[in-house]
Amino acid sequence: MKVPVFELQQRVNNLQETLRRKAIDGALLVQRADTLYYSGTAQNIHIYIPQIGQPLVMAYRDIGRAEDETAWNIVPLLGLSKIPGYIKDAGFPLPKVLGLEFDVLPVNHYERYRKAFQEIQFVDVSPYIRLQRATKSDWEITRLEETALVYPQVLAYAQEILRPGITEVEFDSHLEQKARASGHEGYTRVRGFGSEFHFGAIVSGLRATVPGSFDGPIVGTGASIACPLGPSKAVIQAGDSLILDFVTAVNGYHTDQTRVMAYGNMSPDLLAAHEIALEVEERLRKALIPGRIAGDIYDEIVTWVSENTPYDQNFMGIGHTRVGFIGHGIGLELDELPIISRGAKDVLVSGMVVAIEPKFVFPGLGAVGIEDTVVVEGEAGARFLTLSPREVIIVR
Amino acid sequence: MKVPVFELQQRVNNLQETLRRKAIDGALLVQRADTLYYSGTAQNIHIYIPQIGQPLVMAYRDIGRAEDETAWNIVPLLGLSKIPGYIKDAGFPLPKVLGLEFDVLPVNHYERYRKAFQEIQFVDVSPYIRLQRATKSDWEITRLEETALVYPQVLAYAQEILRPGITEVEFDSHLEQKARASGHEGYTRVRGFGSEFHFGAIVSGLRATVPGSFDGPIVGTGASIACPLGPSKAVIQAGDSLILDFVTAVNGYHTDQTRVMAYGNMSPDLLAAHEIALEVEERLRKALIPGRIAGDIYDEIVTWVSENTPYDQNFMGIGHTRVGFIGHGIGLELDELPIISRGAKDVLVSGMVVAIEPKFVFPGLGAVGIEDTVVVEGEAGARFLTLSPREVIIVR
Repeated sequence: MKVPVFELQQRVNNLQETLRRKAIDGALLVQRADTLYYSGTAQNIHIYIPQIGQPLVMAYRDIGRAEDETAWNIVPLLGLSKIPGYIKDAGFPLPKVLGLEFDVLPVNHYERYRKAFQEIQFVDVSPYIRLQRATKSDWEITRLEETALVYPQVLAYAQEILRPGITEVEFDSHLEQKARASGHEGYTRVRGFGSEFHFGAIVSGLRATVPGSFDGPIVGTGASIACPLGPSKAVIQAGDSLILDFVTAVNGYHTDQTRVMAYGNMSPDLLAAHEIALEVEERLRKALIPGRIAGDIYDEIVTWVSENTPYDQNFMGIGHTRVGFIGHGIGLELDELPIISRGAKDVLVSGMVVAIEPKFVFPGLGAVGIEDTVVVEGEAGARFLTLSPREVIIVR
Repeated sequence: MKVPVFELQQRVNNLQETLRRKAIDGALLVQRADTLYYSGTAQNIHIYIPQIGQPLVMAYRDIGRAEDETAWNIVPLLGLSKIPGYIKDAGFPLPKVLGLEFDVLPVNHYERYRKAFQEIQFVDVSPYIRLQRATKSDWEITRLEETALVYPQVLAYAQEILRPGITEVEFDSHLEQKARASGHEGYTRVRGFGSEFHFGAIVSGLRATVPGSFDGPIVGTGASIACPLGPSKAVIQAGDSLILDFVTAVNGYHTDQTRVMAYGNMSPDLLAAHEIALEVEERLRKALIPGRIAGDIYDEIVTWVSENTPYDQNFMGIGHTRVGFIGHGIGLELDELPIISRGAKDVLVSGMVVAIEPKFVFPGLGAVGIEDTVVVEGEAGARFLTLSPREVIIVR
């Protein structure tokens, strides 16, 4: 689906306002989610956004597709050293202060820009971009609502095919198939350097209690030492708590959701903990109100769990492997702002979209929890975008 | 599968020899394929490799799993600013010249190292690491041979399920399922900044002739503008040339392979071009001999195609969207050295593993070609690691 011109214009206007406020002459962006956001194309491009005026798209190899998709002027990109020339040819003065994405831009790439531009000052615009992108437009919310339609199909299929004796990875392979055939584009964009992610964490039993390389409360042991997250080759046993943490993407927009399933039965202790997870999620959802500060909400929820449940030691992981957040922004990437974490200063704004994921880990027993993607709207708390029933699903 | 200690020791020895030759006091590595290669664990770690002595692994959150997997000393990593302290505590002098991976390390990450280490000189060690990793050990070749067993199962399954009327993405979803259930770990590691990759390019008919964001001769149009490569929602038609370019990974080692299939029949022109692709592949395979220079082989093959076939204009893409290579190194990542491209200076060495992929693109008609992963061994040319029959498969 093409991004409408008014949508692109609004996004660019907002960034230009920030550039003017921060006295940055222009931003030169290259990271895929950012360039898609401001240009409308996911082809291999650079985009130059001046303080005032129309952005300039510079495209490698595939200018035809990029030209069809973006609303902006476009030129072929024949080398990084030529970028100052393209900017001048488009009628802009060369920037004296140029914004780049320092959070993702490799050092060698940066050095090439420094050589091309000489003597100018470079600053990091990634915090402004990430903050802008945290707040979704109505058009984006509609896209997220569409993405949210995939997981319920995966979940229904999971109930059809779950049987004891199937391995985690084989079970997951069928869910991936269903997700792909139901519209999931397959590729999950993750911004963080070194963050590797496939479809999600389809993990069962004690494997859900093992911490791992990915910064999440439930990670899985993976198919091998080399690919150490997500489903493993271990067999799903009757009675195992089975975590269905699964990310889907449609038109570039991701939703993240988790449900818990078991074959035959599940331990009453885990079922009880799952009820608490649902209560924590509801409290968290209601706390996501415009104007509130992310870190305050984190403290409030952690304190509530500590004072009102027996699971203080189990919340979001165990001991030093506990993760430091209970929710994360999501949209064109899996790891957006705001992060609901200790000390996070982000002020919630209507339109922010957050995956909230209270989870409990019990060594020797298993893990339970819930995850939904919600949008911050008003005083009544955030609205669910993901709509599958939240109770534990017992398959018989 | 654990990486054997002798294998890790050999890898570290080789890098240490390079560090001494280049007068670099140590290398601090953080990129996942590199850290897996030198440490044996794919957990979230840094590894410090001094000129002489045992490497030091510093692990985030998940020290238990990393400790089981690596042969080296390991300490918890509690912050980048503490790294100089860990190095001193391990008994090493602080480096005066420290090697980093400038090709992938983000600017902000680099700035944190600069703050932590103060006053020392940083140099890029990524070219040495990439070159070292290009030559595989016997143990690695055996891993690659194991990985190569997945694709034949995918290909056999493709013949079972191909029917006209199925969409590219639905067809692909079943192949992905089969691949995952047959041992493919799902995650494809790609080093290049901004290189996005899912399972491969399962594309048919004219969609195989459209250039795209990924630097390959056949890319596909993808499921949406936001995810513009690989299979699309278009229907596979009887007679379409169907490209099955598919990457698999087992124990972290990737193979890359392409076969062509059609339902009912395929245009004689495309069939004839496919025969030429097979001949080009055979010439290329035989040219991959220790001591030869990658760029020379590229020139030789392009010249041969130009002088001996009518497809000069169709080889590896069309016009300015033609890709600049006919083969690429592969191993722990999809985009390793050597690259068989114009001007490439890499000298071939026994043990280098290359995905060779002569392909022809015909606007208005479709694309054909072949791809195999081969290992450079001796005077007789490279040896095939991927072993599926290479002829066009007509499904009836």
